[in-house]
Parts: sequence; structure tokens; C-alpha cells
Amino acid sequence: MELPEQGAALGGAMRAPIGVFDSGIGGLTVAAALRRMLPLEDILYIGDTARVPYGGKSASTIERYGREISGMLLAEGAKMIVVACNTASALAVPRLQQSLEVPVIGVIQPGAAAAVEATRNGHVGVIATRATVQSGAYEREIHRLNPEIRVSAQACPLLVPLIEEGWMNDPVTRLVIERYLGGLLELGIDTLVLGCTHYPLLRESLGAFVGEGIALVDSAQNCAMRVDAELKSRGMASSGSDSGSLRVTLTDPSAAFLDVAQEALGLEVGEVRVRPVQMLSE
Amino acid sequence: MELPEQGAALGGAMRAPIGVFDSGIGGLTVAAALRRMLPLEDILYIGDTARVPYGGKSASTIERYGREISGMLLAEGAKMIVVACNTASALAVPRLQQSLEVPVIGVIQPGAAAAVEATRNGHVGVIATRATVQSGAYEREIHRLNPEIRVSAQACPLLVPLIEEGWMNDPVTRLVIERYLGGLLELGIDTLVLGCTHYPLLRESLGAFVGEGIALVDSAQNCAMRVDAELKSRGMASSGSDSGSLRVTLTDPSAAFLDVAQEALGLEVGEVRVRPVQMLSE
Repeated sequence: MELPEQGAALGGAMRAPIGVFDSGIGGLTVAAALRRMLPLEDILYIGDTARVPYGGKSASTIERYGREISGMLLAEGAKMIVVACNTASALAVPRLQQSLEVPVIGVIQPGAAAAVEATRNGHVGVIATRATVQSGAYEREIHRLNPEIRVSAQACPLLVPLIEEGWMNDPVTRLVIERYLGGLLELGIDTLVLGCTHYPLLRESLGAFVGEGIALVDSAQNCAMRVDAELKSRGMASSGSDSGSLRVTLTDPSAAFLDVAQEALGLEVGEVRVRPVQMLSE
Repeated sequence: MELPEQGAALGGAMRAPIGVFDSGIGGLTVAAALRRMLPLEDILYIGDTARVPYGGKSASTIERYGREISGMLLAEGAKMIVVACNTASALAVPRLQQSLEVPVIGVIQPGAAAAVEATRNGHVGVIATRATVQSGAYEREIHRLNPEIRVSAQACPLLVPLIEEGWMNDPVTRLVIERYLGGLLELGIDTLVLGCTHYPLLRESLGAFVGEGIALVDSAQNCAMRVDAELKSRGMASSGSDSGSLRVTLTDPSAAFLDVAQEALGLEVGEVRVRPVQMLSE
């Protein structure tokens, strides 16, 4: 099966939704930032909860998942694909950008640019999933902008499960943060990239541990700014005056964490649809 | 697509392998118990690492995954399916037992029987994934054997990620165990079912917390005994005299945890194959 044609021609139907996807619910931090910044846009969000998490899986599997979920968004007429998942951004965005005709925006480039902007001492820390760290995507992107900057990355596989358990402000979570981040602080970073869309939900605990001297770079906010700029420069922004909506589709109905995220983000989500993944035959 | 015919007729080809599957690597605790108890049997193990974990997903998705992975094992000639995953045992085994012609053995029934055997005060605790706890499968199975026994279940979603991080004997893990198990101890259980195939790897930390007065029931060991009995009663045991082997197939190549498990279990695993899942069309 080929990827479906995108439903919206680039020039017309500017009421077409922005397609956003993540391995699960974490990407709602990006959706929330988009809702705040672009209130007139419709957003169609797919969380691949049937296969969550992506963070420990291989590049080839994550790339295939990215193509499958993008295909579902395009079939619904998405005018742009926002990959609201650091792991999929690191591993699937380059190929999606080559193969799709709509713009594809990930969270890595905006986050890397913001980190380069923020650092004063030229040493940036990155926390992310194992797959994102192994991909080296943040290093590559930061060095493309400024090869002098030192990048130290730390995989933090337990942070997502802790957030999904709802233990955002908890002694256990603080202990785990200390374990993962202690080494980065000793190395002397002055900027920390939250390289997973779940992590902004831990902002308070992370900030308390690293202290005020270290800038936290949140990919959700920076990604939304990039989307805004891209829509404007291509003349693709919504031309309507009605406020937009957020529709959420999950590939598996089980979403204990959806309530946690909605509450933490103050998000208005209507009916949540469930649709199994449409697999691509190779 | 229909499920493939099983490759081995029940009466013949007793050199056919026992098919074992889990959402990931945890089921190797069952494979290790089978290797010890049935050294002449060949074991074909599939870990569905492309979609791991199952524990937070819905019944319908887990049931479909169970049918897909069983189909892969049958296509390789498995004479029996062992569901070495509590979540899939709770949610997929009943339908697999109805639809497949080979015997299907899960870990819930053997674990429940062992718990009924072990309890003295008639109060059994169960720790498991969220999906297993929500299924009520252990309660149902224990009450089928003895309706008088009280069952208290606790979902422990963080234990698998902690084990996969290799933090088996760690202050963080001890703190999490205390949080999850404190309530069960206060309720007065005298038996604790380790209702997830990962948990035997935490046996030491769990035992240290609950103390010697509480019997730990390990589904891996009890499941292997049930497989042994079933093979003998059906005349399906391996008739060869060569020692059997363990072959491992993963649906995603990323398996950081495979090394941890192999070492902890002292397992001899040859070449690990990677094959994508064969999806069933409905």
C-alpha cells in the first residue's frame, strides 16, 4: 500500500487540520502549545497507544510507525504533519520529509535551535528516551547550528512511566531525577533540553533539582512557534475566524494517562475516537 | 487471513517445538523454567518487542496481538502454545483455547492453583500490570478453585520499567516496592502471586520487603510444571534423546534488556532472529 495522497492541496482548503502525532499521550503538550498559539487552527491528534512507547524500539520500527500514522493523518486531510514525539522526530522525520508533499515538522530542530540560543557557556544537556539519545539527533542538529557547542545526553527511560503513573511530584521521582541528572550537572551544563514530549509535565521537579542557573528548553513551546512560522510563510494558516478544535484519535482505547494529561494541561478534548493502525505493506 | 494450520499433527512429529510468547523479554523466566524442567524439548520463543509492553493496553488489542503471535508460532510448527505473559494470559488465552487446535497454556491458572495451595489464612495478594489487575483473571481463577479465599490485587506499572533499567537491587526500586506493597501487607495477606513474568527477577527485593512469613508464588515455575503434565498426559513429550534448544525471535531488534535477562537467568540463547509481526486482517 502506498501512502494515501494528502487530502488538502497546498493552496486551498486552509480549514484543513494540522495533523499531530505521538507514540501516546505525551504529544498533547505540543497540541496544548499549538492551541494556545494558533487558536483558529483545527488540530487532529493521533496517539499510537496500541504500540506505545516508541522510546526503546529500533530505528526501522519507529520509521515504519511514523509512516503508518502519517498516512492516517493524511487520509483525514491534514495540511501539515507535526511529529510531537522526540523519538519519532529523531528517527522518522527525515524520511517523512522526503516522501510526503505536505510540510513535516518535528520537535528536534526547534528544540536544538532554542538550546543554541539559550546556552551561555556552550555546554548543553539533553534528556530523552534511549532511542532518541542513541540516534544522536540533538547533537547533530545543535552542531549543524554551532559546531563549538558541547552536548551531553542522558537517556532517562523511567521518567515516562513515572509521569504516566501520575507521580509528578513525588520522592521517588525526585530520587530518579537526581540519579539521571546528577552527572549532567557535574559536567557543567547551563542548558537542559527536555527531549521528550512527556517531560514538560515534570518541569517543576526538574527545575527544582537543577536550580535557576540552568535554562530548561521545552520542545513543545518551540515546536509550536516553528509551526506558526511555517504556516505563515507558506500562506497555509487557517483563514476562518471560528476558533479551532482539537480532535483526538487513539490506536488503542486504553488511556489511563489521558485524564492526567488533560488535567495537567487544561486541555479541552471532545470525544476520543479509537481506530486501529492501518499497516503499510512493504 | 486465517490463522495458519498448526504445523505438527498432535500424534506425530514430537520433535516439534513448544511455542512460547511474551510481550517482550520477561517471558524468558518461563522459558528458563521450561529448559530446566524439560531439557529434551525444543523451545521457540517470540518476544513482541515491537509492541511491548502489553500491560497498559486494552483487552481487544491484547487479544489481537495474542492471535497474531500465536499464528507466527504455529506457522513454525509449534505443538503447543505457552503464553508466558500474564497480561496476554488474562486477556487472550480463553479465545486462543477456543480457536486453536494445539493446547494453549497460560500462566494465570498454574499461578492461581499454586496460590490456593500455599495460603494458610485464606488471603492472597496479587501484583501485576494494570491490564491484568483490571481483567480480574486471578480472582476468577482462584475463586473457581476456592470461593472462600480473599484476593487483594495491586497494579504495579513501574516494576517492569525498573527491572528493564536493570535496577533490580536499588534504593529506588525498594521505595517503589514499599509504596505498592505496603497496603497489601496491612491487609494481612500471607501469599503473594508475582503476576507478571518480569517479577521473578525482583524476587530478592520483594522477598526482603514482605519478609519470610509471606509465600511468594512465581508463575514461571508453576507454568512449567503444568506444561510438563500436559505434554505427558497427551503423549506429546519429545521422544528424542538429544538435548533441546532455545531459539528466540523478536518482532523488533531493539532489546537492551535481553542481556540483563540472559545474565540474570543464566540462559543459553543462540542467534536471535528478528521478524516483523504478521498482522491478521479482521
